Amino acid sequence: MLDVKTLERIRVRYGETDQMGHAYYANYLFWFEQARGAWCRDRGFTYKSLEAEGIFLPVVEVHVNYRGEIKYDEWITVEVWVSELRRAAIRFDYRILNEETGKVTTEGYTWHVVMGSERKAISIPESMKLLLGRNPSDYDSVE
Amino acid sequence: MLDVKTLERIRVRYGETDQMGHAYYANYLFWFEQARGAWCRDRGFTYKSLEAEGIFLPVVEVHVNYRGEIKYDEWITVEVWVSELRRAAIRFDYRILNEETGKVTTEGYTWHVVMGSERKAISIPESMKLLLGRNPSDYDSVE
Amino acid sequence: MLDVKTLERIRVRYGETDQMGHAYYANYLFWFEQARGAWCRDRGFTYKSLEAEGIFLPVVEVHVNYRGEIKYDEWITVEVWVSELRRAAIRFDYRILNEETGKVTTEGYTWHVVMGSERKAISIPESMKLLLGRNPSDYDSVE
Amino acid sequence: MLDVKTLERIRVRYGETDQMGHAYYANYLFWFEQARGAWCRDRGFTYKSLEAEGIFLPVVEVHVNYRGEIKYDEWITVEVWVSELRRAAIRFDYRILNEETGKVTTEGYTWHVVMGSERKAISIPESMKLLLGRNPSDYDSVE
Repeated sequence: MLDVKTLERIRVRYGETDQMGHAYYANYLFWFEQARGAWCRDRGFTYKSLEAEGIFLPVVEVHVNYRGEIKYDEWITVEVWVSELRRAAIRFDYRILNEETGKVTTEGYTWHVVMGSERKAISIPESMKLLLGRNPSDYDSVE
Repeated sequence: MLDVKTLERIRVRYGETDQMGHAYYANYLFWFEQARGAWCRDRGFTYKSLEAEGIFLPVVEVHVNYRGEIKYDEWITVEVWVSELRRAAIRFDYRILNEETGKVTTEGYTWHVVMGSERKAISIPESMKLLLGRNPSDYDSVE
Repeated sequence: MLDVKTLERIRVRYGETDQMGHAYYANYLFWFEQARGAWCRDRGFTYKSLEAEGIFLPVVEVHVNYRGEIKYDEWITVEVWVSELRRAAIRFDYRILNEETGKVTTEGYTWHVVMGSERKAISIPESMKLLLGRNPSDYDSVE
Repeated sequence: MLDVKTLERIRVRYGETDQMGHAYYANYLFWFEQARGAWCRDRGFTYKSLEAEGIFLPVVEVHVNYRGEIKYDEWITVEVWVSELRRAAIRFDYRILNEETGKVTTEGYTWHVVMGSERKAISIPESMKLLLGRNPSDYDSVE
């Protein structure tokens, strides 16, 4: 089920632009994060609830290709999916579609380690594997 | 000693601008915060050390007057001082000088309540009053 | 029609929190801005289109009262309305409801001057007064 | 001279942390940008002056490895250098030292295309090659 994508629509804020007139490169990482949150909710849980159980997913690697511009007030769709699972790490992939231009402007990925409540890397717990493997069509998206 | 000002120099980042070509209004609050940190260090302690002792100073009120522009790569000097102390609250005042133009571009203040480790408002502890009342000329600034 | 409010729902991003565990005070100003954008769209135009016509609304004053906490992943509703019009300035007022707790956590306002394409303050043009005075129920919200 | 590194010291802001207690992953990209600005100044010019001459360096690719934590109020040193020049593109490399722990916590790079005033990719102009090839020890750092 890992290849099932979640789509998250975001409208670009004025404060996310810079003086070159389009979105500043760091702000894409906020959008990736928002999309990861939506990915969880599509599968019936939240990242917040993971943390409440003592599981954290800090980012350890980021890669982004910026192909085209994204401007103020434009709607973008961030596609997000889990592309790889390791013993103690998860990779999310992203593709951003600029709805204004109809073009894919951005591609990227993030690697996350799974940390337990002692803030050390742990193997992905079975309970979490079940969450990650869920088919979104079997679950109501969490509001 | 409350009227003794601390000066903090900051250079404006590209990512702090917006498409209008100058610094976005929210980013001034990051600069105010940096200046408050410098105010503490000038008096021989750090805000970090306050939190380590279970004292937090969340912001409860903000006011900013934006009189002039601040642009990318410009040096600003943020003047900060404590203008009022109440039983459980502190007010910091700010004035921003744009070094490029030599003009005061911004004035503002922030009110903070004093919270203890239970995350409830408390009267300012005596130990903290001593810190706030320090004369910076008696202390080495904390690196 | 100035008293007609627009509501904008926003979900708090992880990157908008700080180590105290709730949303950092500067980030509320991004939410205010997003709500102003929605206010325009409710009346059948966009802030982007104003800028395209050479009208800019830089912020000259901000006031915020932070009464309660707002945390990661919580839904907030930002209520926004125009509370005052002057010859060359507009005031927007804001009220933030934390949907999680059902409480109004934040109130504030921003003053904006109206600037023309020469980047100088101008009297509000008649065409713009008509936009500001629109009744949202007469217009389709701009996507 | 491309291998000559520039060092930029930055102190982490409170607003740059998140509820996990350390710096949010997007904020590193602001630090990289600040370090690139310092790299230019070390060679006697500014990125601002490049833009004034109609040369822009938008980011087209980012890679970051986050190895260790960076916390509020910690001093970091960002090492930055140009690691590769292509006909119309420049790569900057970065290494972040956490001064508190003495450890290299972060490594990364950014690719930039060279854009002219028409906002299209251009070959790196000769005048700019001269700037990039400067030996910082021959120049006073721009204030």
